[in-house]
Amino acid sequence: MLNTHIIGASGYTGAELAKMVHLHPHLKLAGLYVSANSLDANKPISELHGQLKGVVDLPLQPLCSPQDVAQAGDIVLLATAHEVSHDLAPIFLVRGCQVFDLSGAFRVQGDTFYTQYYGFEHQFPTWLEKAVYGLAEWNHDAIASAQLVAVPGCYPTASQLALKPLLESELLDTQQWPVINAVSGVSGAGRKASMTNSFCEVSLQAYGIFSHRHQPEIATHLGQQVIFTPHLGNFKRGILATITAKLVDGVTTEQVEAAMQAAYAADGDKHAVRLLGQQAAKLQSVVGTCFCDIGWQIQDRHIILTSAIDNLLKGASSQAMQCINIRNGFPQLTALV
Amino acid sequence: MLNTHIIGASGYTGAELAKMVHLHPHLKLAGLYVSANSLDANKPISELHGQLKGVVDLPLQPLCSPQDVAQAGDIVLLATAHEVSHDLAPIFLVRGCQVFDLSGAFRVQGDTFYTQYYGFEHQFPTWLEKAVYGLAEWNHDAIASAQLVAVPGCYPTASQLALKPLLESELLDTQQWPVINAVSGVSGAGRKASMTNSFCEVSLQAYGIFSHRHQPEIATHLGQQVIFTPHLGNFKRGILATITAKLVDGVTTEQVEAAMQAAYAADGDKHAVRLLGQQAAKLQSVVGTCFCDIGWQIQDRHIILTSAIDNLLKGASSQAMQCINIRNGFPQLTALV
Amino acid sequence: MLNTHIIGASGYTGAELAKMVHLHPHLKLAGLYVSANSLDANKPISELHGQLKGVVDLPLQPLCSPQDVAQAGDIVLLATAHEVSHDLAPIFLVRGCQVFDLSGAFRVQGDTFYTQYYGFEHQFPTWLEKAVYGLAEWNHDAIASAQLVAVPGCYPTASQLALKPLLESELLDTQQWPVINAVSGVSGAGRKASMTNSFCEVSLQAYGIFSHRHQPEIATHLGQQVIFTPHLGNFKRGILATITAKLVDGVTTEQVEAAMQAAYAADGDKHAVRLLGQQAAKLQSVVGTCFCDIGWQIQDRHIILTSAIDNLLKGASSQAMQCINIRNGFPQLTALV
Amino acid sequence: MLNTHIIGASGYTGAELAKMVHLHPHLKLAGLYVSANSLDANKPISELHGQLKGVVDLPLQPLCSPQDVAQAGDIVLLATAHEVSHDLAPIFLVRGCQVFDLSGAFRVQGDTFYTQYYGFEHQFPTWLEKAVYGLAEWNHDAIASAQLVAVPGCYPTASQLALKPLLESELLDTQQWPVINAVSGVSGAGRKASMTNSFCEVSLQAYGIFSHRHQPEIATHLGQQVIFTPHLGNFKRGILATITAKLVDGVTTEQVEAAMQAAYAADGDKHAVRLLGQQAAKLQSVVGTCFCDIGWQIQDRHIILTSAIDNLLKGASSQAMQCINIRNGFPQLTALV
Repeated sequence: MLNTHIIGASGYTGAELAKMVHLHPHLKLAGLYVSANSLDANKPISELHGQLKGVVDLPLQPLCSPQDVAQAGDIVLLATAHEVSHDLAPIFLVRGCQVFDLSGAFRVQGDTFYTQYYGFEHQFPTWLEKAVYGLAEWNHDAIASAQLVAVPGCYPTASQLALKPLLESELLDTQQWPVINAVSGVSGAGRKASMTNSFCEVSLQAYGIFSHRHQPEIATHLGQQVIFTPHLGNFKRGILATITAKLVDGVTTEQVEAAMQAAYAADGDKHAVRLLGQQAAKLQSVVGTCFCDIGWQIQDRHIILTSAIDNLLKGASSQAMQCINIRNGFPQLTALV
Repeated sequence: MLNTHIIGASGYTGAELAKMVHLHPHLKLAGLYVSANSLDANKPISELHGQLKGVVDLPLQPLCSPQDVAQAGDIVLLATAHEVSHDLAPIFLVRGCQVFDLSGAFRVQGDTFYTQYYGFEHQFPTWLEKAVYGLAEWNHDAIASAQLVAVPGCYPTASQLALKPLLESELLDTQQWPVINAVSGVSGAGRKASMTNSFCEVSLQAYGIFSHRHQPEIATHLGQQVIFTPHLGNFKRGILATITAKLVDGVTTEQVEAAMQAAYAADGDKHAVRLLGQQAAKLQSVVGTCFCDIGWQIQDRHIILTSAIDNLLKGASSQAMQCINIRNGFPQLTALV
Repeated sequence: MLNTHIIGASGYTGAELAKMVHLHPHLKLAGLYVSANSLDANKPISELHGQLKGVVDLPLQPLCSPQDVAQAGDIVLLATAHEVSHDLAPIFLVRGCQVFDLSGAFRVQGDTFYTQYYGFEHQFPTWLEKAVYGLAEWNHDAIASAQLVAVPGCYPTASQLALKPLLESELLDTQQWPVINAVSGVSGAGRKASMTNSFCEVSLQAYGIFSHRHQPEIATHLGQQVIFTPHLGNFKRGILATITAKLVDGVTTEQVEAAMQAAYAADGDKHAVRLLGQQAAKLQSVVGTCFCDIGWQIQDRHIILTSAIDNLLKGASSQAMQCINIRNGFPQLTALV
Repeated sequence: MLNTHIIGASGYTGAELAKMVHLHPHLKLAGLYVSANSLDANKPISELHGQLKGVVDLPLQPLCSPQDVAQAGDIVLLATAHEVSHDLAPIFLVRGCQVFDLSGAFRVQGDTFYTQYYGFEHQFPTWLEKAVYGLAEWNHDAIASAQLVAVPGCYPTASQLALKPLLESELLDTQQWPVINAVSGVSGAGRKASMTNSFCEVSLQAYGIFSHRHQPEIATHLGQQVIFTPHLGNFKRGILATITAKLVDGVTTEQVEAAMQAAYAADGDKHAVRLLGQQAAKLQSVVGTCFCDIGWQIQDRHIILTSAIDNLLKGASSQAMQCINIRNGFPQLTALV
């Protein structure tokens, strides 16, 4: 049993992680932590997340000494704000913990990226370089030997899983940038009081047009520029990405199908992608599951892909768990289905 | 044209009032105000409430001198917090304005009521005594000559409109307290950021059990104790009250029907109640309207009443407008249908 | 007062029309009709649409003799199925009625269009040719003298109002087809029982990919090919279209702004478009209103437009009413704001 | 491994059962069935319930010969319509299968009950008499030796679990009937196309006032008359029951607490009830779980209880699974948490 600590356990992602670790046959849920001055400190996690009552009732401990936590831990999950992850990760890493960071703090290399998109200067270029991007279906081998895994963002997961097979097979006309329109449930904004997330204010709308930090994350890891427009939807969980792209002249439906099959062969243990063929992905089928559903249709030289995930699961916690499983030699979907 | 000012115009009720006053053929929307230190000060109201864009674009002025506003106004609508209404109303009243207060500050007389239920001591017992409770269908004549109208709360409106005809006709067995279960949309909590109102946290649940301030408001104005249990529902607008009560032995369906008809005779101009008979009230029929729908069924000595309103309209702003219309001799539903 | 008949009045659009005609100072709601064998025949419309109770309680008459209705009517609104409109419209037209058809039966000319997209062969090429496309902001003069107005579809209204100013000003690089992603509320599918519209089955998903009949409607009336992907959203009313397009090299933000202002000058009586500038359109601001909100942002040579309407109002009934107003010389937004 | 068949597997409850049986370490999902003439026959269950794709993809077989199914089965779950369960159960029972019926066909004894409330005459009085009511927390021993278990209805489960401890401890003043107001998600009406369940028609409303068949089910098994008013809510899953009752004179909070604790001692394996004390139950905490959350508050002689379940789980499928576990000696919450 590997001792597993969750830092930032009061949020929606933290609650999902706590349940998964609890259910995992080879992990021991060693501790849940919140920042030392959090109002939620010392409350049982089930007081914040009532669905956990009777299942996981551990207290949310104030994180006073990350060093002590590091000593007692094999695995550390960081479900913390970007700057917090940035500051904490090295403390755990130098003490030998495996670190799975769900924030954006170690996802993208590049001199100006963090200053421009996250508003802070990155202090740990060496760790940033060593970090493995945890897109489970595509970085399996690197994850298997990583000490620091940067779990991808929710939109980037849905977007890349759909586009990568086509790019890898060189089926896309890369001159015309793919257009990614995606709608996320409100939980994507985290567990907090704000006018934007207030029940009466939420209604479908685009935000972060041309400026969302997930655009460069997607473009960097795809190696392809994209136009990415996120939207807030009036539902709690889930992301649906609808992607319009141009195919290389002469590409056939069969070639697309073959590229998808090659990427996500029907081997249940290897991944969490379900191919829908001509059917369109829908939120309801993926919410509450670890899966990414992908459908596509072609007309002339255009392809429209639909890709759906649960933003808190495949877009965050269950992908982190896939990475833990890969890293430690467990079947990839352990504790997930 | 009567100059009409709305104080506390940034909230959901304020926005509804602004639109109604704008549409009213005999009222002039003279000014919109927020507290002097509000972050929304000087913004056009349509920046906060996008549906008003192009319809009402007046700025939300900081309320620096209520005295000046009073001089320039015939009618003042207070859509302010209870304590704010308590403090402001006399300033407008002594300068001769008609004041329609949508808060709870002048609704209930009694030595300990405000200390116990609102957490402040009432400083204006004379005005409190002069205030007329603005339940439009029941206090018509008093409203017609009032200077200060305390517009009823949302739950009390839905509850009393259903129960009053039966109590007035002495059809209820008053030994057994009526049980009022009511569910309100989230807008009832006002326009503000809070965890409770956060989109992902809202789900059907009771609150304020045995302790909600609307219980004594209902009991006082009915002259009958009741058990009142409010609930938060996962919708933006509307209140549905389901009321279970005991009838006096021998009361017939015909007597109940007659009491309802007597109270709300089919005279469209006189009131905003629609009788549904055996049909149950449903939210969808009243949301966006000024109406209270009431249905009822009887079995043996029990009666179950359902009563539905839009909490922001009949439960607040449209009832205030009914009171303005009554007070100034306009047809009662002017600007409302 | 013009006698106005609504055919197909049992649906959501019919109910909206009934209320508007009722409120209109120059129209008389002469009759509501459903098909002769409808189960709703002879019910008051307010039995189906509870919000109308006490406002419009006219019965839904079985349409036995359209000829008789035509004799008694000045204006006929067809809120009927496509084939029904196709069959009925000429009966009213030859008897001199003004006909405003909300179906797709007279929207697009072309030999194979109706066979391919609507599954029937058009029998009235002359009327089809005479029909004026009722995009109120763009076809004002033709509507003003039309006898038959084909009120545009909901998606086409949202899409064209955003794109037309750019195309007319030749700011778009038309080589790269604009990508229109739009999400509609469930009411777009009409008032009927179906698994697809069942409460528990609805969740965000694309449909009609590369095959929706609104694609050729948009392309025809824009004179520009587009990629159009409609989605079903988990809400009752509203459409949000997010449109990604490429600008001609060198086009500036100022030019786009100027094109928008030129198209929709700030003259409240002339149209129902509200320009948001850099702000993104959101559903909540338009639902329940007659307005189309349009926002846009530019980066390099890409523009992203967001366009929001109430699908039942600007996407159907209120646009029909704009056309009636234009046709009969009333201020364009009469009965609408 | 016990061979387990699910009859009526196309519905929401059937899908939940399929997943549970699939996850159960001692059950083998032997077959899924729909009626022989169902349009869904031979489709994989995951075509109807997309969340099951890759998890349970078995076909929905047409049930041509229940006799053959009985031969090959140890356990049969009937997620069928009441009449269908009534007809099928004996076929499986006489062949020695354990039958867990989720319909109402075997829940209540009494000469006129089925004629009055279900519209058919019961043909199997002997089996009706032998049937054990599967309220897992209260009928443990009888369930452990039953061949036919009638799994309780959703409303009766939420209602009885809250009231039974008080009645058993004789703390309630039984002269005054408890008032049960309950709101159910739309999935309670099953997976089918209907106007009532249509997305645009759903809004909070009471139904079945004084006439719902769950009223006598509750009253019979409680041994106490109750007033029960069900409501349809605008959400997919969950039931919240708010119950108002009168206590015997002098009953203390401590006595109520003791009665609850005695009924649901903190022994995780024995039951699926979570006691919340003074806190009110909320839907969000139970949806997706097998738990019933119960809270209560007392004032003078009144008690208000709130009780929340997932209608498809504790109100149907997970309670059936509790019964299977009890009957076969497995830990009671196997496959449930």
